[in-house]
Amino acid sequence: MAAHWPDDIMKKVVALCKRRGFVFQSSEIYDGLKSAYDYGPLGSELKRNLMNEWWADMVTTRENVVGIDASIIMKADVWRASGHAAGFSDPLVDCFISKERFRADKAPRPEAGADLPILCADKGQAKSYQALIQKMHNIELSRSGKELAGLRVSDDGKHVEFNGTALVDYSGYVSPCIGSPFLSEERSFNLMFKTNIGAVDPMNDASQTLAELSAAEDLTAAIQERFAGNCKRKDAPITKALARVSDGAVPEKDVRAFLIRAVIEQITFNSTVYLRPETAQAMFVQFKNVMETSGQKPPFGIAQMGKSFRNEVTVEHFIFRSCEFEQMELEFFCEPGTQLEWMEYWKDQRMNFWKRYANYPDEFMFRKHEDDELAHYADGCYDVEYKYPWGWDELEGIASRTDHDLHEHEIHSGTKLRYVDQEKEDPETGKKPWSYRPFVIEPSAGATRGLLVYLLDAYHEETRTDAKGKEVTRTVMKFHPKLAPIKCAVLPLVGKDGMPEKAREIIASMQAAGIPAKYDQKGSIGKRYAKHDEVGTPSCITIDGQTLEDGTVTIRDRDTTEQVRITIDQIIPRVKAQLGL
Amino acid sequence: MAAHWPDDIMKKVVALCKRRGFVFQSSEIYDGLKSAYDYGPLGSELKRNLMNEWWADMVTTRENVVGIDASIIMKADVWRASGHAAGFSDPLVDCFISKERFRADKAPRPEAGADLPILCADKGQAKSYQALIQKMHNIELSRSGKELAGLRVSDDGKHVEFNGTALVDYSGYVSPCIGSPFLSEERSFNLMFKTNIGAVDPMNDASQTLAELSAAEDLTAAIQERFAGNCKRKDAPITKALARVSDGAVPEKDVRAFLIRAVIEQITFNSTVYLRPETAQAMFVQFKNVMETSGQKPPFGIAQMGKSFRNEVTVEHFIFRSCEFEQMELEFFCEPGTQLEWMEYWKDQRMNFWKRYANYPDEFMFRKHEDDELAHYADGCYDVEYKYPWGWDELEGIASRTDHDLHEHEIHSGTKLRYVDQEKEDPETGKKPWSYRPFVIEPSAGATRGLLVYLLDAYHEETRTDAKGKEVTRTVMKFHPKLAPIKCAVLPLVGKDGMPEKAREIIASMQAAGIPAKYDQKGSIGKRYAKHDEVGTPSCITIDGQTLEDGTVTIRDRDTTEQVRITIDQIIPRVKAQLGL
Repeated sequence: MAAHWPDDIMKKVVALCKRRGFVFQSSEIYDGLKSAYDYGPLGSELKRNLMNEWWADMVTTRENVVGIDASIIMKADVWRASGHAAGFSDPLVDCFISKERFRADKAPRPEAGADLPILCADKGQAKSYQALIQKMHNIELSRSGKELAGLRVSDDGKHVEFNGTALVDYSGYVSPCIGSPFLSEERSFNLMFKTNIGAVDPMNDASQTLAELSAAEDLTAAIQERFAGNCKRKDAPITKALARVSDGAVPEKDVRAFLIRAVIEQITFNSTVYLRPETAQAMFVQFKNVMETSGQKPPFGIAQMGKSFRNEVTVEHFIFRSCEFEQMELEFFCEPGTQLEWMEYWKDQRMNFWKRYANYPDEFMFRKHEDDELAHYADGCYDVEYKYPWGWDELEGIASRTDHDLHEHEIHSGTKLRYVDQEKEDPETGKKPWSYRPFVIEPSAGATRGLLVYLLDAYHEETRTDAKGKEVTRTVMKFHPKLAPIKCAVLPLVGKDGMPEKAREIIASMQAAGIPAKYDQKGSIGKRYAKHDEVGTPSCITIDGQTLEDGTVTIRDRDTTEQVRITIDQIIPRVKAQLGL
Repeated sequence: MAAHWPDDIMKKVVALCKRRGFVFQSSEIYDGLKSAYDYGPLGSELKRNLMNEWWADMVTTRENVVGIDASIIMKADVWRASGHAAGFSDPLVDCFISKERFRADKAPRPEAGADLPILCADKGQAKSYQALIQKMHNIELSRSGKELAGLRVSDDGKHVEFNGTALVDYSGYVSPCIGSPFLSEERSFNLMFKTNIGAVDPMNDASQTLAELSAAEDLTAAIQERFAGNCKRKDAPITKALARVSDGAVPEKDVRAFLIRAVIEQITFNSTVYLRPETAQAMFVQFKNVMETSGQKPPFGIAQMGKSFRNEVTVEHFIFRSCEFEQMELEFFCEPGTQLEWMEYWKDQRMNFWKRYANYPDEFMFRKHEDDELAHYADGCYDVEYKYPWGWDELEGIASRTDHDLHEHEIHSGTKLRYVDQEKEDPETGKKPWSYRPFVIEPSAGATRGLLVYLLDAYHEETRTDAKGKEVTRTVMKFHPKLAPIKCAVLPLVGKDGMPEKAREIIASMQAAGIPAKYDQKGSIGKRYAKHDEVGTPSCITIDGQTLEDGTVTIRDRDTTEQVRITIDQIIPRVKAQLGL
């Protein structure tokens, strides 16, 4: 853990986010939606600032990058081509004891011969789980405090044993929360949110069809007759389902439910659309339109920021993993053979970006993906990782994706997605022109994760001894001035004697100069300083009695807490310099 | 139609948007998603500029407005409370002849005794529709060119007549496209996009349950037994469905399909979430959190911009009505009794905003909602309308919603959504404090519509006689400089002799001064000027041979096409003044 953090840093950041209006639970008054967050007055500004910095760095100031803003709802064909509709899934397991649901590929994996203690939350839970296991498996585990003992992995790693006897098959892992080996089978689960578009509700048609089919003696035959037209298409859900049934791949007892599901899938098939699980595909799908209209040619990039949606099995670490999140992605299209140079270029650019706004740049590093981690088409990938309170974890991925994506969309859409270089010879034919599918470098950053990183990086508690010898702790969010949600607060010492008017006059002149200064009159001056420390306002300007006499104000620095007296006309240049304007 | 438009203005704007990279069809290479659009390199900048102007005007520069950025997926409870889940629906009708689907409440309504000509797209269509109607109703309408005649509304307005004989019932309206009275019944249709959240796919459970129930002789009884627990809840879908069946409200032949649908609805009920159909509800749901953390008290506002989703029956007029669109909404909370003053205030503010960026401010006006248009809880509403090519239509609504929304969410969530004014007496008890639900003024603007309005407002074709006496037409997008996607283009006359280097040097100094200048070297200088006229770049700076000799450049004005020669150090102040920086 970073040295500047207290032990319970996550808890404290979450509490500060709620208390100061950075992040709220979505739909909170209705008991909250666990997997989505609302950004409050300060959180929405912080997020805007971060994303605007990214856009300025990646699009506005570059000659060879243009932006797009594509729709969130995209045709299902796009996701069928990209492979998301088929393979975008996680192996999902239930713990029969704790009812926890978790991802098998992320679970602890005790080895052959290892003991399998079950560690409960408290004694009461241990007692009730002990009873439940006794009921299910007719064994009594020994209980000591909140731990249940007696289970182990057999020496061949195949079973869970109790007193030397095999009890159940061993999955190779246990549930992450309590360490239980009593688990369901893995189920695959599509992470995309699905909905239906169009003028009629297809579930009405599906219900009607199921009602008509319910009288059929032979459901398979009735379906074949009813969907004869659809069955001509190999990729139709009903065709695939009937094939699986006739192959015997579906247990007899499950066939009816399986076919009912297939009928619903078939009837809703054409109106099915997905919420994008990433912003990236739009850049491939619109590659041709963008290249043709923008006058760009490789090497050039298409950038996009925006929301993506994944029905995540586990939502965790506050806003680190949630079902609705925001991305900042670039697809950079270059000549085949040049991609690894460009990957190095973008690694530098992106690492510099993250470090630029950080107090602790050493807490960012690259992690190279091992060969066995890479997708079959990728020829390199690096993650930008941050040292979160739970350890190093992902913030951005920079992948060399070859021409895989454009190729898949060429095949599925029948549209050529190529650049024709009139000046170069095709390496295969030796003749001009060279028509190629550009290779792609994809720096894909999590905006929501970036927000969490800078909230963590900014969080400081400072303990000092005050004038009376008492220890006082100050919480201060040391945001980079470019990210700070409030750039400068202007505080009348009291809400009378012309001070509010003077404060507003100063704000007006600052806003005219492009500095979004904010008025704040609520509470004692000490409380206001403490509040602006907690929300990370780089400087506070205070209007007091002397201001009205001699035209000076005090300006207080968030990080040092030092106050100096300056004249009103020094305010704008000083604050501008601080903000880098 | 506005005087500066050619006749086919919509067609021309759509074509320009595609040609220059403002707006593309979503998923275009997959035949497009009719109801969603992607914003290209210039469209995304134009949209960003418009929305940033709104945010600066509504949030950054105001003391009493704060912003939020809430999740798009919200708990279904929110929409059950707001009434959207129940009543957010349109009466939907199919034309049996043209297969057109349309909204009954928007259709033409010929009166009793009126003729009902059917006007087809062309002669061929007229012939085939004539044959179709003959087949369906055994009558031969007379055909003249693309019109079919012979039908009229009966004098009592109850039937459609042919040769004085009643043919079918008259719905009171005809299909908008061809005027056909051969129509389906109205169906109600929820406009919200629905999806399911959570770690399991509820359609698997639903299929399993339907398979189990399929053996039941008495489906109703089997459902009652299976869902005994859910049936205790009055608002459970299965409870409501069973009640409708037992009331005889469902025709006997439809009961089975209706109950199958109800089983699916019940099983998916708890995991159902909706994509927000408006950004507004989040401000009500987070009212308490925001008020408590921001230090605001009435009168104050909460603002939000972002995407909303409606499964619209008709998508029309390019980006005017689409399934995915962007809103800019403010909920302004004020003391009961002061709302109509605040409505006047916000009417002024919002009208000024729209006119500020327009070439033709007279093409915006207010339309007051008549009493019979108002929702039962509203005590006033004005639309800001724009004179679109198809006539005056909505751009923004400014509604006085009383405390209706906070009241509904109080009832449904059990959370008090009030402000306690310690200084004031409760008008009912005469005692301090006064705890009240604030009244709300809601200026709700369409960002996507705003984009369309400014695209239309900017579009100009100018015909001039050139030096050779030839008529030439110039297309120029006269965007307000704050909205223009490219603020200033810097063009080397040729791509050599040090001109590109000089151009990039100037761009670097402009960007350092906060002006996002763009480099452009592609094509002849004439073509580049024509391009920048079409994309609305306010000024183009050209680097030529003389630049390298004496440090001067030409600067060309988009609207006048005049070029003047200035020194390099005059560029920044001149462009800044033009942009209002």
